[in-house]
Amino acid sequence: MKKIYLMVISFLLVGLVFTGCGDKPTNETKQSAAPVKQEAKQVAKKETKKVVWKLAMTWPSTLTPLASPTHNLAKMVSDMTDGNFKIELHGKEKHKAALGILDFVKNKQYEIGHSGSYYWKGKDINTIWFTTVPFGMTMKEQYSWFYYGDGMKYMNKVYDRFGILNFPGGNTGVQMGGWFKKEIKTADDLKGIKMRIPGLAGEVMAKLGVSVTNIPAGELYTSLDRGTIDALEWVGPGMDIKMGFHKVAPYYYTGWHEPASEMQFMVNKKAFEKLPKAYQNILITAMKASASDMYYENFHASSEAWAKMKTEFPDIKVKSFPQPVMQKMKDATTEVFNKYASENKLFKEIYINQQAYIKKARAWSKMGEYGYIQTTDSLK
Amino acid sequence: MKKIYLMVISFLLVGLVFTGCGDKPTNETKQSAAPVKQEAKQVAKKETKKVVWKLAMTWPSTLTPLASPTHNLAKMVSDMTDGNFKIELHGKEKHKAALGILDFVKNKQYEIGHSGSYYWKGKDINTIWFTTVPFGMTMKEQYSWFYYGDGMKYMNKVYDRFGILNFPGGNTGVQMGGWFKKEIKTADDLKGIKMRIPGLAGEVMAKLGVSVTNIPAGELYTSLDRGTIDALEWVGPGMDIKMGFHKVAPYYYTGWHEPASEMQFMVNKKAFEKLPKAYQNILITAMKASASDMYYENFHASSEAWAKMKTEFPDIKVKSFPQPVMQKMKDATTEVFNKYASENKLFKEIYINQQAYIKKARAWSKMGEYGYIQTTDSLK
Repeated sequence: MKKIYLMVISFLLVGLVFTGCGDKPTNETKQSAAPVKQEAKQVAKKETKKVVWKLAMTWPSTLTPLASPTHNLAKMVSDMTDGNFKIELHGKEKHKAALGILDFVKNKQYEIGHSGSYYWKGKDINTIWFTTVPFGMTMKEQYSWFYYGDGMKYMNKVYDRFGILNFPGGNTGVQMGGWFKKEIKTADDLKGIKMRIPGLAGEVMAKLGVSVTNIPAGELYTSLDRGTIDALEWVGPGMDIKMGFHKVAPYYYTGWHEPASEMQFMVNKKAFEKLPKAYQNILITAMKASASDMYYENFHASSEAWAKMKTEFPDIKVKSFPQPVMQKMKDATTEVFNKYASENKLFKEIYINQQAYIKKARAWSKMGEYGYIQTTDSLK
Repeated sequence: MKKIYLMVISFLLVGLVFTGCGDKPTNETKQSAAPVKQEAKQVAKKETKKVVWKLAMTWPSTLTPLASPTHNLAKMVSDMTDGNFKIELHGKEKHKAALGILDFVKNKQYEIGHSGSYYWKGKDINTIWFTTVPFGMTMKEQYSWFYYGDGMKYMNKVYDRFGILNFPGGNTGVQMGGWFKKEIKTADDLKGIKMRIPGLAGEVMAKLGVSVTNIPAGELYTSLDRGTIDALEWVGPGMDIKMGFHKVAPYYYTGWHEPASEMQFMVNKKAFEKLPKAYQNILITAMKASASDMYYENFHASSEAWAKMKTEFPDIKVKSFPQPVMQKMKDATTEVFNKYASENKLFKEIYINQQAYIKKARAWSKMGEYGYIQTTDSLK
C-alpha cells in the first residue's frame, strides 16, 4: 500500500511540476487512489490546470486599436495564471474568414472570438443592439445600460441560441460620418451617390436614395479613388488617415450613425463552463479591463491624428450634415426601427427599453462632459 | 530515505489541501528536502499561496459609488484566486481616520488604501494631478493621459517617495458646482459667502473672496441649514439628493472645479513586491476593472437621480455660473497654478505636460460625444 501510495503521489507531483497538471494526468491510477491523493488531485487540477484557447478575430491581428483588446486579453490572462492559461490569437490573415467568427465560436472551432455584434444582423437582427445604432447611445450611456441597466440581460438572451456568452470588447466612441467627394448641402445631394456604409445605417442611407454597398477594407481606397464609390465611412481620424481617404474625398463628416461602436468578445458557453472557476473569473475580469483600455487607446490615437490632420492636411473640410439632412436621417432611422419592431417581439422590447434608458441618460449626459465643455470652451 | 520522502510529500500535500500552503508550511523539513520536494514546494507556494490584505478607505464602507471599487476589487481578486487572496475592507467607521489612508499604507498598517489623491496636497502639491483640477481634463481625456500619455509615469514619480504604487481607482465624472442659498449673478455675489469646497478649487474660490472651509460629510446638512455655511459642493445628484441639500439651498450650479475626480488605489510597494507575480497581475487587472465600473455605476445612479429630481423637486434651480464669473474663476485658477509652478519644478513640468495634452485631446473631445450631442440634440 505504501509503495502504491508513494508512486501515486510521486506521479502526481511530477505531473504538477513538469506538465503543470494537464487534463488527464492521473487517469491510469484512478482506481487505486487513497483519499489524500483524491483531494490532492483536485487541488492540483484546480490550481495549475494548463489551458490553451484559440481566439479568432474579424480584423488583421495588427489592426490597432480594434485588435488591441485581444492582445491585452491574452497577456492579462497569461500573466494572471503564470502562463497556465494561454490564448492563441488568430487574425483574419490566418483564418481568412473575417465574418466567420460567430460560426467559429458557435461550432467550437475557436473557444473565443473578437468581432462586432452588428455583423450578425443577418442571423439575428437583435445582435445590432450590442454594437451601436444610428442616433443611439454614447459610450458612457451604453456601458451604463450594459452593466447597470438591462443591456447584459438582453445580450445573454440574444446570444443564448448560439451557445455563446457575449461580453463588451472595446468601444471606438463616436465614429465619423465618413468621407465624401462632394459637399452634402441638401438631402437631394445624397440621392444616387454610391457609398460604403454597413449595418442599420446602410438601410437608413438607402431610404435617402443612397446606393449602399459593402467593400472589404483592403479595396476601399482604390474603390474611392476610381469612383466605384463616391463616399464611405470607416472609423475616425486615428484609423482613417492611414488609409489615405482624404486624398480623394476631402469632405469629412461628423458622426450620427455609430455613436458608440462596441466590439464583442464571444465565448463558447461549453468551453467556458469547462474552465476552472478561477479561470472563468480571470477571463471575465480581463475582458472588462481590456475592453476599457481600447477606448482610451483609440481616443489618444485619434486626438494625435486629429491634431496632425489639422496641420498636415489643411484641405480636409470637416463638416456636419445640415440639420434638415440629419432630420431626414433620423426619420428614416425611426422608420427602420419601427419596421423591425413590428416584425420581431424581442426587437420591440429592447428598442423600448433602450429608448427609455437613453431619455434619462441623455439628460444627465448633457450636464456632464457636454455641459462642462459648453460652459468652459470660450473661456480664455 | 523512502520514509522521509513519503513524510515530506505527505506533509506537503496535506498542507496544500488543508491550509492551501501558507507562507511557512515546510520550514521544519527544509534540510532534508529532495529535489522533487523542492520543486513541488515552489509550485505549491506559487499556486496556492494564501494572502490576506487589509484595505483602508476614506469613506464609510457603504458609501456608494465611492466605496464600490473596493467591494468589487475584493470580490474580483478572491474570485480569481479561489479565495486564496482575500482583501479585508475597513471603512472609515472602523479605522476612524478618513484622511489617514496615505500614512496607513506608507507605514504598512494597511497593504492597500482607497482614497482621493488630492487629499494629500499638504504632503505634496503634485498629488493633485491624479484626482482632477479646476478647468482640467474630462474623464476620457484624463484616462487617456494616464494610460497613453505621461500620467502613470508622473503618478509613479510622485508616489515613489511614499513607498507607494498608485493606481486609478474610479471616476465620478464632472462634479456639480455645488448648492447655493442665493443666485450668483456677478462675481460680487461670491464675496463674503461661506462655502465648503476642498482642494485647489477652495484656493480659487478664496481668491474670489469666498470664505472657504472644510466640514465633515456628516455635518454638512446641518451647517447649511443653520447658516454656518451659505454654500457647498459635494458630488452630483446621485449622491447629493440623499443628503437633502436642495431643501435649504435651491440653486444647483453646474461644474467647473472637478471635471473628472479620480479616486486612487494606493498599494504599499514592499507588500506588492512580496506577492506572487500572478497575484500582482490579478490585483492590477482587478483595480483597472473595478475603477472602470465605478464611472458607470455613478453615471447610472446620477441619471436616475437627475430624472427624479426634475419631477419630485421642481423647485431646484439648475444654473451655470455666468460667463464673466467663470472667467474670473479661470483667471484665479491660472494664478494658483502659476504660483505653484514657480515654487515647484515638478509641478511646472506636469502642468505643462497636462496643458499640452489637453489641447490636443479637447479638440478631439469636441468631435466626439460633445459634437454628437450638439448636432443631434434638437432633432425630433
